[in-house]
Amino acid sequence: MFSAEAKVDPAHGRAVESALAALGEALGHKLVTSQAVREQHANITTYLPNEAPDGVVFAESVADVQATLAVCRDHRLPVIPFGTGTSLEGHVNAPRGGISLDLSRMNRILAIHGEDLDCVIEPGVTRKRLNEDLRDQGLFFPIDPGADASIGGMASTRASGTNAVRYGTMKDNVLALKVVLPNGDLITTSRRAKKTSAGYDLTRLFIGAEGTLGVITELTLRLYGIPEAITAGVCPFPTIGDACNAVIETIQSGIPVARIELLDEVQVRASNAYAKLSLAETPHLFLEFHGTHAGAREQAERFAEIAAAHSGGAFAWADKPEDRTRLWQARHDAYWSVLPLRPGAKAVATDVCVPLSRLADCVMETKRDIEASGLIAPIVGHVGDGNFHTTLMVDVDDPADMAKAKAFMSRMVERALAMDGTCTGEHGVGQGKMKYLSAEHGAETLDAMRALKRAFDPLDIMNPGKIVTI
Amino acid sequence: MFSAEAKVDPAHGRAVESALAALGEALGHKLVTSQAVREQHANITTYLPNEAPDGVVFAESVADVQATLAVCRDHRLPVIPFGTGTSLEGHVNAPRGGISLDLSRMNRILAIHGEDLDCVIEPGVTRKRLNEDLRDQGLFFPIDPGADASIGGMASTRASGTNAVRYGTMKDNVLALKVVLPNGDLITTSRRAKKTSAGYDLTRLFIGAEGTLGVITELTLRLYGIPEAITAGVCPFPTIGDACNAVIETIQSGIPVARIELLDEVQVRASNAYAKLSLAETPHLFLEFHGTHAGAREQAERFAEIAAAHSGGAFAWADKPEDRTRLWQARHDAYWSVLPLRPGAKAVATDVCVPLSRLADCVMETKRDIEASGLIAPIVGHVGDGNFHTTLMVDVDDPADMAKAKAFMSRMVERALAMDGTCTGEHGVGQGKMKYLSAEHGAETLDAMRALKRAFDPLDIMNPGKIVTI
Repeated sequence: MFSAEAKVDPAHGRAVESALAALGEALGHKLVTSQAVREQHANITTYLPNEAPDGVVFAESVADVQATLAVCRDHRLPVIPFGTGTSLEGHVNAPRGGISLDLSRMNRILAIHGEDLDCVIEPGVTRKRLNEDLRDQGLFFPIDPGADASIGGMASTRASGTNAVRYGTMKDNVLALKVVLPNGDLITTSRRAKKTSAGYDLTRLFIGAEGTLGVITELTLRLYGIPEAITAGVCPFPTIGDACNAVIETIQSGIPVARIELLDEVQVRASNAYAKLSLAETPHLFLEFHGTHAGAREQAERFAEIAAAHSGGAFAWADKPEDRTRLWQARHDAYWSVLPLRPGAKAVATDVCVPLSRLADCVMETKRDIEASGLIAPIVGHVGDGNFHTTLMVDVDDPADMAKAKAFMSRMVERALAMDGTCTGEHGVGQGKMKYLSAEHGAETLDAMRALKRAFDPLDIMNPGKIVTI
Repeated sequence: MFSAEAKVDPAHGRAVESALAALGEALGHKLVTSQAVREQHANITTYLPNEAPDGVVFAESVADVQATLAVCRDHRLPVIPFGTGTSLEGHVNAPRGGISLDLSRMNRILAIHGEDLDCVIEPGVTRKRLNEDLRDQGLFFPIDPGADASIGGMASTRASGTNAVRYGTMKDNVLALKVVLPNGDLITTSRRAKKTSAGYDLTRLFIGAEGTLGVITELTLRLYGIPEAITAGVCPFPTIGDACNAVIETIQSGIPVARIELLDEVQVRASNAYAKLSLAETPHLFLEFHGTHAGAREQAERFAEIAAAHSGGAFAWADKPEDRTRLWQARHDAYWSVLPLRPGAKAVATDVCVPLSRLADCVMETKRDIEASGLIAPIVGHVGDGNFHTTLMVDVDDPADMAKAKAFMSRMVERALAMDGTCTGEHGVGQGKMKYLSAEHGAETLDAMRALKRAFDPLDIMNPGKIVTI
C-alpha cells in the first residue's frame, strides 16, 4: 500500500496508514488505494520511473479538496494534484508517497459569459470538452498543448502549444483562480474585470506552480470569438535552416500568424505513415491564419512571399474544416506517430525555448547533435515563439541508451541556456528539469522561489520534490 | 530632517539620524536631505497629504541600491522606490519616514534586440524616451499610461493605458526583471525567451507589487513593429450609454482596435478649451486602428457600421501623424485640462474596471451619482477593457468637500465590486485604495498577500504602509 520510498521509513508507514484511515472516514468511496489506480496516477508519459502515491482521492467538490488537505496536513502527507496525467516531466509522480488528488470529477462549466468573452469552469474540464461547449456560441479557448489535458493541469504547468504565438500561454488567458491553500483557506485571486492593479498578482503565482503551492479549484478564462476566416496549409523547405529563417522573418514582419509549426523531415516521415499524409520528406511548416476573409488572405500572401524568399516550396492549402482538422490532428499526434520509428522504445519528449534570433542556430545544432549521437529524435516546434521539442526514441530499460539520451537532453538545455533561452518553454519542471534550474536562474533566484514555497506551504505537503525542495 | 510621524518616536529619530550618517558615508552626494527635495519625492498628484521621506538617495547603480538597502535593513528604516512620482494613489508617500530611493539616474537603454522584438533597460528610462530611441528601428513599446512615467514605476504599478485593449498591460509586456530583494540579493526573474515554464513566475510577482517586495533594477521588455498603417479618429455619440454600447459591440466583434477611449461631454468641453479642439459637446470615442493599409481600413469601416447602429455621428479622421499626435496629446492632457473647470481645486483621479458587459451600466450610474452629488467630475476611460476614470475637482482644504469626494469614490468602488469589477484597473493600490482590498479580495486572499510580503520582506522595510500591512 505504500510507495517504495515510504516503505523504508516505518514512521512514514504508520503516518500513511493512519492518514488513509482518516481519509476513508472523511471521503468514503472517493478514496481508492488499489495498486492499479495508484500507478495510473503516477507518471505515465515519460522515461522517469513510476512512483505511485499511497492512495488516490477523487475529489468532487471544494469540500473534498479541503478535507483531503486537512488529513494530509495533520499527517504531514504529500498531496499531488492530478488532472489527466498527460504532463511530461514527472509532475504527478509521488517520490515521497502521499495522496494523488484527482480533480477530473470536478468538471463543471459553471458559467459562459459570451458578452464578456470569459467563462468560469472547474479544473477537471478538458480543453476539447470546453471547446465543444463553446462552439455553439461562436467562442473558443485557444490554448492547445496537444494532449486533451485538463484546464487545471494546463494552468499548473503554464501550458501553451500551437496557438500561443498569437494568443499567448495560460498565463495570458486566465483572469482569476480559486485556490485551496495548504492551510485549507479557499482564496479568490482576482475578479472578472479584464485588468486590475489591486495588489499582488496571485493569479500568475499559481499558474506554472505545478500544484506545489495549492490546489486550483476554479478558473475564469479569457475566450475569443471564432475568427470569421481560418486558413491553414503546409509549406515544404529544403532545409530546417530555411524553415527557421522563414519563421523568424514572418514574426519580425508582424504577421499575426495564429499557428506556425515546424516538423523536421524525420517527423514528416513519421506523420506521413501515422496520419496517412503524403508530404514530401523534407522539413515543413504547418501554418494557420485567423482574421477576416480579406485579412487572413493577406496574411497568407505575405507569408508566401517570405517563404519563397527562403526557398520554400508551394504552399498547400487546407481550406475545408475537415482538411484543417486532419492537418492539426496529425501535428498533435506527433508524439504517437514516432513510436513506430523504433518499436519497443519509449518516446521521451523534451522542450527548450530560445530568443527567436537564435532559433535557427539552436535547432540546427540540435539536429547535428542528434545525428552525431546516433539517436532517433524527430524535431517539432512552436517555432513562432522560439520553442521546439525533440522526441527521443529510447529503450528506457537499457542503461547505456538512457545515459545517451540524458546526456543529449542536458546538452540541449545547455545550448538553449547559452543562447539566453530556458530549459523548458512549456512542459514545465516537474522532476525532470529540476537539475537545470540552478544554471538557468542562479542560486539567489532559487532561494527566492524557495521563500515563496515556504510562505505558502511551510509543511511541504504540496507536491514535494517538484520545482524546488525546501 | 525627520518626517512628521517619525518625530513623535525618539527611537525612530535616532535610527534615522544614524542611518542618514551611514548613508552619507556610503553614498556621498547621492544622498540629499533638503526639505524641498524630500517633499518633491512624496506624493504630488493626489489629494493625499504629502508625507515626506527622511532623505532621498539618487541611485546610479545596482551597488547604490544594495548599499541603501543594507543601511536601511540595519536601521529598520523604510525604503520607497521612486521613478517619476506620477503615480496617483500615494505610492511614493513615506508615512513611516525612511529613504526615497530615486532611480531616475539609472536610465540606460542597455540593449535593443530588434530581431527578437525585445529590449533591456534600466528602470529610470521613461516611456517617451524609450519610444524615441526605438523609432529609428521601426519599433515601439505600447504601454502608455498618459504621464511620461518611468518604465520601472510602470512595472511596479502594473500600468496599462490607452493601448492595453490591443497590447495588454505591463504584466503582458515584461519578459524578465532584475530585482534587488530586501535582503540585498540581486535576482534575475527570467530569461529572454518569449515563454518559459521553468518555475514560479517571479516576473509577475514584482509587477504591480508597488515596490513593497524589492527594487526593480533592470527590465527586459517586449517590443512591437510600428504598424504599416495607423488610422485614428473621433466619433460623437448622443449619450454616454450609446458610446459604451458601441464599445461593447466593437470588442465582442473581435475588431482588434488599438485604442478606444471614452470622453464624456464634460471632458470634451474641457479638452476643447485646453487643447483647442472643436468637438461637439457630446460624449466621444477616440479610436486608433493598427494594421496593414487594407486591414486598418477594414477595421475602421467595421467600427463605423457599429457606431452608426448606436446613433454615432460622422467619424472624423486624423490620418496625418501630426493630427494623430494632437488628438492623443489632448487625451493624455485630460488630467491637466480639467483644472480650469474649478479654479483653485485639485484634480483627484480615480479608476475602476468592470467586465465589459457592465460598462454602460457602471458608467451611467456613476454619471448619475456625479450629477446627484453636485460634483464636477469628467469621465474618461480605456473603455475597451471596461476601465474608466473620474477626475474629481476638489477643494482638498475644505473638509466638507473632501468628505463628499471620498464618499463618491467609495460608492464608485462599491458599484464596480458589485459588478464583479476591481477597485483599480490601472492606478494601483498605494495608500488610497488599501481600504477596499478586503471587500474586493476577502480576508483569506489578503492573508495570502501578507504571507507573500512577509516571505520577501520580513523586516517590513520595503515601502511599508502600501498594498497590505504586516
